[in-house]
Amino acid sequence: MEVYLDHAATTWVYPEAAGLMNDIMLKDYGNPSSLHRMGIAAEQYVRNSAETIAGILKVPAKNIFFTSGGTESNNWAIFGTARAKRHKGKHIITTAVEHAAVSSPLAFLKKDGYTVTTVGVDEKGVVNVDELAAAVTPETVLVSVMLVNNEIGAVQPVKDVYEAVHAVNPDTLIHVDAIQGFGKMEIRPKQMHIDFLAVSGHKFHGPKGVGFLYISDRAMPGMVPLIYGGGQQSGMRSGTDNVPGIAGMGKAAQLVYSSLAENREHMFAVREYLISRFDAMENVIIHGSRGRDCAPHVLNVSFSGVRSEVMLHALEDKGIYISAGSACSSHKRTPSATLTAIGCKKAETESAVRFSFCEKTTLEEAAFAADTIEGLLGTLRKFTRR
Amino acid sequence: MEVYLDHAATTWVYPEAAGLMNDIMLKDYGNPSSLHRMGIAAEQYVRNSAETIAGILKVPAKNIFFTSGGTESNNWAIFGTARAKRHKGKHIITTAVEHAAVSSPLAFLKKDGYTVTTVGVDEKGVVNVDELAAAVTPETVLVSVMLVNNEIGAVQPVKDVYEAVHAVNPDTLIHVDAIQGFGKMEIRPKQMHIDFLAVSGHKFHGPKGVGFLYISDRAMPGMVPLIYGGGQQSGMRSGTDNVPGIAGMGKAAQLVYSSLAENREHMFAVREYLISRFDAMENVIIHGSRGRDCAPHVLNVSFSGVRSEVMLHALEDKGIYISAGSACSSHKRTPSATLTAIGCKKAETESAVRFSFCEKTTLEEAAFAADTIEGLLGTLRKFTRR
Repeated sequence: MEVYLDHAATTWVYPEAAGLMNDIMLKDYGNPSSLHRMGIAAEQYVRNSAETIAGILKVPAKNIFFTSGGTESNNWAIFGTARAKRHKGKHIITTAVEHAAVSSPLAFLKKDGYTVTTVGVDEKGVVNVDELAAAVTPETVLVSVMLVNNEIGAVQPVKDVYEAVHAVNPDTLIHVDAIQGFGKMEIRPKQMHIDFLAVSGHKFHGPKGVGFLYISDRAMPGMVPLIYGGGQQSGMRSGTDNVPGIAGMGKAAQLVYSSLAENREHMFAVREYLISRFDAMENVIIHGSRGRDCAPHVLNVSFSGVRSEVMLHALEDKGIYISAGSACSSHKRTPSATLTAIGCKKAETESAVRFSFCEKTTLEEAAFAADTIEGLLGTLRKFTRR
Repeated sequence: MEVYLDHAATTWVYPEAAGLMNDIMLKDYGNPSSLHRMGIAAEQYVRNSAETIAGILKVPAKNIFFTSGGTESNNWAIFGTARAKRHKGKHIITTAVEHAAVSSPLAFLKKDGYTVTTVGVDEKGVVNVDELAAAVTPETVLVSVMLVNNEIGAVQPVKDVYEAVHAVNPDTLIHVDAIQGFGKMEIRPKQMHIDFLAVSGHKFHGPKGVGFLYISDRAMPGMVPLIYGGGQQSGMRSGTDNVPGIAGMGKAAQLVYSSLAENREHMFAVREYLISRFDAMENVIIHGSRGRDCAPHVLNVSFSGVRSEVMLHALEDKGIYISAGSACSSHKRTPSATLTAIGCKKAETESAVRFSFCEKTTLEEAAFAADTIEGLLGTLRKFTRR
């Protein structure tokens, strides 16, 4: 039995999305910038995808810009705003639990003369809104808050953040890294007052190498592109449109949102089942929320006395694939910023592993993983003690 | 009969490349950053592709960095060098015939305090090396010269450019936009002393949304990334690797270079056949080289008295797809910079169309296009005169 429980790292692609991409690559392969029929057919795929995504978010399609993925989307929102607003102010606020795709561009801006305030979170990983509001100044051009944390699934109160920020500085723009949120919950950028929303295709059964950035009308004037060239996408993001990738992502978005409620219910059931199994084992710590105030697809757990990599490779040997921390940074050996921020001690951080599901993960697969861990735990702990 | 003669805009994907991508998306869908078997399998596809491409260019695989396409590669080479060398100098030299993916980022730098010198070309579109060398100063940090022009197929003497530049300023780096060159000719970055080589997958039967940038060892120290995040690709280009795209591009590179000599011979035969047919028509002007000192796959022609779009749509009606200027900028109504630079008058520029082939374009298809034009020309010219 092979059990993939690393869906927060990446997902398999919906066969319908992959099939559509294959057809486009072999038959409808035109360049959307071409003026002839082949170009127009290609452009139609891009437009359909923008309309599908815009329909899900309840925003106009003209506010959706396709990128190469979530990392580019986050970089663009941050660098584009910083460059657009550099004469207005050089202060940015973020949280202690952001993904590197947000914290790394911010670190670059710091070296470039920007001030970046990092706000803490509570033990469930939820940002302290009062602390955040207190940090806002007339110079604050951007607040960057993720929607769903990639390590523990914490959901941030984005609308509360907006309201608190807006009360102090109504010009401050709100950027939301929604890479782990899109496909897992309803997102309404207008209701939530989000100015930038970064999304990645491969986290919800779409293809790798494609994502999008939603940009609100109020953030658009003066927004600076990250990539310049032939003027595609209204000059905001140049480069030949990745038609198959964009179409595949649109198809995946449509499919994942067509059964969102059932998907959530199912993933929460898997999550709660695993929590109940781990609670029955000795010295196991569940990180973040145990309830339904978090994302349904992520569960972070420390098996005390067993180092993350040891557990990961022991499970790999049994055909179970999980993550030690987030995959995106797992080749690095730095302790998890998220777990540190929620108050985990070093030993807990070093033994934390992440289980992440999709709507097709079965309770049987979860049971197999729990049974396997139960069987291994004694031996692994003995091994570690030596 | 449908005849696609717009391969310089984009190409169909090799079925072997599309098939490989489909398998990866459905089965080997792991994240290369994951530490388990699924991640390692994904990483192997990325490594194989880097090694295939490196083998073709005769460079080490560690110097190949994957991007979202040619436009990102060009932007990265230009912005990355400008930022890395800003304390050394703020002067960049380029040519009058570059693609917008080079000229637009340079225009941005101009507004940011950089000096950009644009060097002219001869009637075949070949850069004036003496003029270029005369422009080099101790402040010149970068020279950006394309390998193959996208509109007329002119091949630039990259090695001569290097030698002339190097004689004046040995620290100046050489960037080459090889988007229309890769897959059409042998490229040896080391022999040619190229520091940056930008390539796009979809121009040689690989997928859209993926490309690469070769960076020489001497250009590496201090090179600034364009996109920051999880530290993928040695921290030089963050973001989850586009595994299917990267693997598909590698497969396409392998296939296209496995029969380069035959491909070139065949495409030149198609080109020469079309030239001979157009020469037999009245008032037809061939732009750029007629010989084999240019790229084999591009032919730019003015049918005097017939506006580009009129010819394009008349041929489209007959199932023949060509380009008015380059597809990448064809939604814009500005006259072609390349044709203006080689001395075309306004009327010639306004009637120029581009035919572009691949190795599977047949002489029968070329004959059908030529016959169709021959049949239409009188009517179209009458129509225009009214």
